[in-house]
Amino acid sequence: MAAVRVGLLGCGVVGTEVVRQLQLHAGDLAQRVGAELELVGIAVRRPNRVRDLDVDPALFTTDAAALVTKNLDVVIEVIGGIEPARTLLLSAMEHGASVVTANKALLAEDGATLYSAADKHGVDLYYEAAVAGAIPLLRPLRESLVGDKVRRVLGIVNGTTNFILSRMDVSGASFTDALEEATALGYAEADPSADVEGFDAAAKAAILASLAFHSRVTAADVHREGITEVTAADVARAREMNSVIKLLAICELSEDESRIGVRVHPAMIPRSHPLAGVGDAFNAVFVEADAAGPVMFYGRGAGGAPTASAVLGDLVAVSRHRVGGGRGPGESSYAQLPVRPMGENLTRYHISLDVAEKPGVLAGVATVFAEHGVSIQTVRQEGHSDDATLVIVTHRATDAALAATVEELRRTDVVRSVASVMRVEGAEQSR
Amino acid sequence: MAAVRVGLLGCGVVGTEVVRQLQLHAGDLAQRVGAELELVGIAVRRPNRVRDLDVDPALFTTDAAALVTKNLDVVIEVIGGIEPARTLLLSAMEHGASVVTANKALLAEDGATLYSAADKHGVDLYYEAAVAGAIPLLRPLRESLVGDKVRRVLGIVNGTTNFILSRMDVSGASFTDALEEATALGYAEADPSADVEGFDAAAKAAILASLAFHSRVTAADVHREGITEVTAADVARAREMNSVIKLLAICELSEDESRIGVRVHPAMIPRSHPLAGVGDAFNAVFVEADAAGPVMFYGRGAGGAPTASAVLGDLVAVSRHRVGGGRGPGESSYAQLPVRPMGENLTRYHISLDVAEKPGVLAGVATVFAEHGVSIQTVRQEGHSDDATLVIVTHRATDAALAATVEELRRTDVVRSVASVMRVEGAEQSR
Repeated sequence: MAAVRVGLLGCGVVGTEVVRQLQLHAGDLAQRVGAELELVGIAVRRPNRVRDLDVDPALFTTDAAALVTKNLDVVIEVIGGIEPARTLLLSAMEHGASVVTANKALLAEDGATLYSAADKHGVDLYYEAAVAGAIPLLRPLRESLVGDKVRRVLGIVNGTTNFILSRMDVSGASFTDALEEATALGYAEADPSADVEGFDAAAKAAILASLAFHSRVTAADVHREGITEVTAADVARAREMNSVIKLLAICELSEDESRIGVRVHPAMIPRSHPLAGVGDAFNAVFVEADAAGPVMFYGRGAGGAPTASAVLGDLVAVSRHRVGGGRGPGESSYAQLPVRPMGENLTRYHISLDVAEKPGVLAGVATVFAEHGVSIQTVRQEGHSDDATLVIVTHRATDAALAATVEELRRTDVVRSVASVMRVEGAEQSR
Repeated sequence: MAAVRVGLLGCGVVGTEVVRQLQLHAGDLAQRVGAELELVGIAVRRPNRVRDLDVDPALFTTDAAALVTKNLDVVIEVIGGIEPARTLLLSAMEHGASVVTANKALLAEDGATLYSAADKHGVDLYYEAAVAGAIPLLRPLRESLVGDKVRRVLGIVNGTTNFILSRMDVSGASFTDALEEATALGYAEADPSADVEGFDAAAKAAILASLAFHSRVTAADVHREGITEVTAADVARAREMNSVIKLLAICELSEDESRIGVRVHPAMIPRSHPLAGVGDAFNAVFVEADAAGPVMFYGRGAGGAPTASAVLGDLVAVSRHRVGGGRGPGESSYAQLPVRPMGENLTRYHISLDVAEKPGVLAGVATVFAEHGVSIQTVRQEGHSDDATLVIVTHRATDAALAATVEELRRTDVVRSVASVMRVEGAEQSR
């Protein structure tokens, strides 16, 4: 059997690890594929950069555009970002190569273009590494659960923010201190905004929603809130509720199955929920399907070696197809479900109000909720006289009704100030 | 596109659910496959049995052997057991049909014969439902982690025993009482021996080890101990160690990578281990791979609907191959690693000894361990004078050395009796 010709685009942390593992496991991979995997070229920006790799220097090239035209079987892309990655991958597929990519941003922005090129040229497009690193998640969604009806995907898909929130929970640290610690330990980048503002999680949510609901969802469709506003006081309030705050990516089918909700925001979840125990920089994704029930996937969501593991798994799968014929599943967007606006998603709020404890306050507050059709699950009053706090947890209502309720509470005389607002998730599912 | 012709063998709990979901999701499944799925026949032993299904009675047949020859694209087998399932599946493949099966016993006893028939006839052999029900697990092992080196698989793969052990942990119940409760709730069968003696878990361990290590492992290769000897006192002792007792299926690569260990037995694991929180009849499997690190899969391991979800996922995958060409991965047993005897596996023991508290007892006990090359991690003495207990946890040693140590302790004068012996797992892995 002729060797499978592989080209690599990018040789940073993940690319370096891909090359290392390709070399380390060459014999095993050849047995599993049914042919040798031959690394034909590595496109980099700086060919003379010192890399901790033992490869023929002649493999390095700065001409990625030329590399992808060299009769390759598989192109692995770990450059990231929209361009030049998109142009290179489209050219690679046009020249007959299958694609393995870790590029969540590109898939979330313009997956449709890539899928349509893969279909047109009869090649594979695999991207397990794009979401939740080493955790087998996209293949299970695309293939294992494909005979079922997925209702909901609830995931911790960003390791940086999970590390920060876990630190805040364990040590009571502020967001700023926890971010500093994350940066010092290498869990956060110098510019952490893609992580802490939720952009990374939103791209992953778009990919998950597309696969789970057989529809096209882009990053722009995703309601996104980061964790920069989460305070130590919020974390303490969650603790009082026997809950923990996590940045969640939530993809769900509306009850009438006509629309989907896709959102990323911090939320309280009960400590008894399987996701609550996911600490440090780990990722985990909880999927609810009609027949399967709840299913959870857990592991390392980022890092060179875990991401390379996912890339190599895809490389073996795609290479098997080159050797044995056939293709993996292509885009499945037949359902074409629209994404509903954030305001129409059903959520629950945990609201803390600073109030004076006097007759009529609770009645006044309750009236505001009632007028917006929001039903209250629990109210707890803390402190007394001038220094009281009302802690309210609502039942499910539309996010718009809840937001309007909070807006009016801010204007109401009986409320001194709205101390905090945090959504509540995961409480109504059974383990 | 012509319809994909599907034959179903068996229509018990799982088969009924397969038919129901095939009907319920017919439109979606057709979109996902790219062709209609046509149920051509259902082979049953009792065609006149009342079934809660709305299907054409003409579909039922008692002649399974004839059904599998009817130009089928896919045969789904949910009969279970070795025969007639094996003969039927071999005939189905010979007649060109791909196979989807939930039959762990058959795969664990004679997977090689099935794989070789699938290869010979160029058809697919899928069996996600055979291990851990609805949890996508085999596909991730066969495909997602196939570029990595798996070191260890540690799983709770039997829901009945997990329910029983969870009840014993929560309520302090005896094994007998917990089994009774499991039977009353439908978690245990009238004859529970396949579950409580570990046969079911052993078959699954054989399948997992085969996939994880690209070798052929059969149920007969698996060291098997059930949970019938686990007492309320054992559970209480685990609790004192901040641990919990689980029936574990353990598949591991030896340090020199030349052999594999495959075993099923109860063991203490620390409550901080991700598997410890897996309660009720849930299943979870923890995989450690070199690059991916730890990965965990969690969900419902049994039941009609969850198992049907896994069957239908495979049905869609296999049907896509019928429509688009190609095949999924076949058997990968190139590594041909032998299974080492139980005595050569490295384990740790938790041992409770009834002793008299007097000078020389601890020295005498410690000498027995030392003579067998077993190193002690902790010793705790409880009680005093004539009624003392020594609780000893060892470091890793070969199971043979540990067993010989216990044997000699039983004969030693300084030890009144060996109150309990339980293996300890999962303490040396990081989360």
